Amino acid sequence: MIKPNPIGASCPLPIADHPKILMAHGGGGRMMAQLIDRVFRAAFDNRDLQTTHDGAVLDIPQDRLVMTTDSFVVRPLFFPGGDIGALAVNGTVNDLSMCGAQPQYLSASFILEEGLEMETLWQIAQSMGRAADTAGIHIVTGDTKVVERGHGDGIYINTTGIGVLEHDARISPARVKPGDAVLLSGNIGCHGMAVMAQRENLTFTSPIQSDCAPLAAPVMALLKAGIDVHCLRDATRGGLAALLNEIATAAGLQISCRETAIPVDDAVHGACEILGLDPLHVANEGRFAAFVAAKDAGHALEIMKQYNEQAALIGTVTNGKPGMVTVQTPIGGQRILDMPSGELLPRIC
Amino acid sequence: MIKPNPIGASCPLPIADHPKILMAHGGGGRMMAQLIDRVFRAAFDNRDLQTTHDGAVLDIPQDRLVMTTDSFVVRPLFFPGGDIGALAVNGTVNDLSMCGAQPQYLSASFILEEGLEMETLWQIAQSMGRAADTAGIHIVTGDTKVVERGHGDGIYINTTGIGVLEHDARISPARVKPGDAVLLSGNIGCHGMAVMAQRENLTFTSPIQSDCAPLAAPVMALLKAGIDVHCLRDATRGGLAALLNEIATAAGLQISCRETAIPVDDAVHGACEILGLDPLHVANEGRFAAFVAAKDAGHALEIMKQYNEQAALIGTVTNGKPGMVTVQTPIGGQRILDMPSGELLPRIC
Repeated sequence: MIKPNPIGASCPLPIADHPKILMAHGGGGRMMAQLIDRVFRAAFDNRDLQTTHDGAVLDIPQDRLVMTTDSFVVRPLFFPGGDIGALAVNGTVNDLSMCGAQPQYLSASFILEEGLEMETLWQIAQSMGRAADTAGIHIVTGDTKVVERGHGDGIYINTTGIGVLEHDARISPARVKPGDAVLLSGNIGCHGMAVMAQRENLTFTSPIQSDCAPLAAPVMALLKAGIDVHCLRDATRGGLAALLNEIATAAGLQISCRETAIPVDDAVHGACEILGLDPLHVANEGRFAAFVAAKDAGHALEIMKQYNEQAALIGTVTNGKPGMVTVQTPIGGQRILDMPSGELLPRIC
Repeated sequence: MIKPNPIGASCPLPIADHPKILMAHGGGGRMMAQLIDRVFRAAFDNRDLQTTHDGAVLDIPQDRLVMTTDSFVVRPLFFPGGDIGALAVNGTVNDLSMCGAQPQYLSASFILEEGLEMETLWQIAQSMGRAADTAGIHIVTGDTKVVERGHGDGIYINTTGIGVLEHDARISPARVKPGDAVLLSGNIGCHGMAVMAQRENLTFTSPIQSDCAPLAAPVMALLKAGIDVHCLRDATRGGLAALLNEIATAAGLQISCRETAIPVDDAVHGACEILGLDPLHVANEGRFAAFVAAKDAGHALEIMKQYNEQAALIGTVTNGKPGMVTVQTPIGGQRILDMPSGELLPRIC
């Protein structure tokens, strides 16, 4: 779909009038109506958004739906490879994909801080519109609140997504079985390190780009190929370590991985060393793990490699200690990979 | 449904360990998992919330769904007649009702400020659980983010609701016609004045209680009685004035009201005079207007009075100037009731 406003077009709300967000933009009156009409409607343009009503009536072709929600508070708002707008769309779209659902409808709710530059909001809204187009999801309803200066941080965004399960696959941690292969969709740690590098003013010869991206395509390809996918989970906050621990706990099984099999870029390794972080704890916004029976692992990996050639078989589910995750180190030892317990990377998404 | 934790039970996350929200409660690790499990799951307990997955799979009996979203930033968090938790549930439930939908599923997403008292969060979560039970909606999925001290205001909540249209009624501003009666569901201005009085330390002999409440029951009663409801809208931010202006603009018609027909409590009148506000601009969280053909007005009003005896016929839709709202004053003059253009009552919901 081509937007009525080309990429990079300047904000259609006359900036000369209101170059910054005022408290009145959240007051439910004329200025809020203008903001919604000229910024959000212009950026998200689609048929379902045109009714001036409190909610959106959705035409859903069948009965099994998936609903998921996420709020986004990333700091800074713009980083190499993305921004809070693209993140807010892709993060929720990916949670739908992890349930095996085809993304359909999205709500977008904004908490704006008084004084936010209108141009910044316009850039973010446009980025959301583009990400929604790419993911094939429609932004159908929304909300705007404004809080006083010093009670926010520019902009916080909530998105809630609705997707349709178009297949009979049951994708759930409960279906993970001993012997299952653990497949990772690509190199990890890029999103977290891109944001941290930007925040901490770290410079690299080649800047680390966030992996922020929609995951629907590889997931749908796995399902369409008839792979019996037991479980899917994206590696966001808490990184791959949190993902593996969550699944091991929910399934009541052990997961054993090989560290050398887990793809990590040199730049991410370097940045992690500077900041004293384990790449396995670093957030991603476009990477997932798939749990499939060993017999399906080869075929599934082949499909995943079509979307990211760094996709890899990184480990196996075993009958060992329930909830434990172990990693075989490069020198052959075993370490326990724990759930991150502190706050390593605040406000990464 | 009876909660596993009785009302007023103390927070099940050991307060001795973490009496305040830490950044780590939003880090995606062990502490966030504990927070979700022991606070939110305990307060929202229902079958659909039990799967440890990124989204909720919903069983929806039919095809026409309504989706709506709202973020809540009210200040203070607790006020006479309600709190941010009850508001966050009722606000979204009411937007579903205004579309004529039966509320079904709710997501709940939290932006917590570092340092928030755990006991405060627990009170709010319990209040949400109770409000959801009352409205018959299930909280099925959620998200938690934590921002640093000074970048929030205790707690902001987003809720997104899904409802089912169980009837053929088309409820939309486009169906409002000249001659339609405008019915108001009760006395206005209580929510806004309850919050402002609390915030400004105004004391009255009898404190003003917020009207925060679910509206599904009177709406469903109208529909079940076979009333051909043309449009419904709740009077939230911007008050009755914003509601009437929005409908007049969307329908391209004029709305003419009589000021003496609009019920306003004496205490609200008094508080508005002190603060220099027009009660018609003050926010409500449990009041709506129904637009019906003149021939149905008597029957509809009779039904609405069963839920609030102050329900009243306040005006008529006419073929006058499109988008204009006029009010006949007590002394017989006409004034134009404009959309509130500034920020009269910031952070009222």
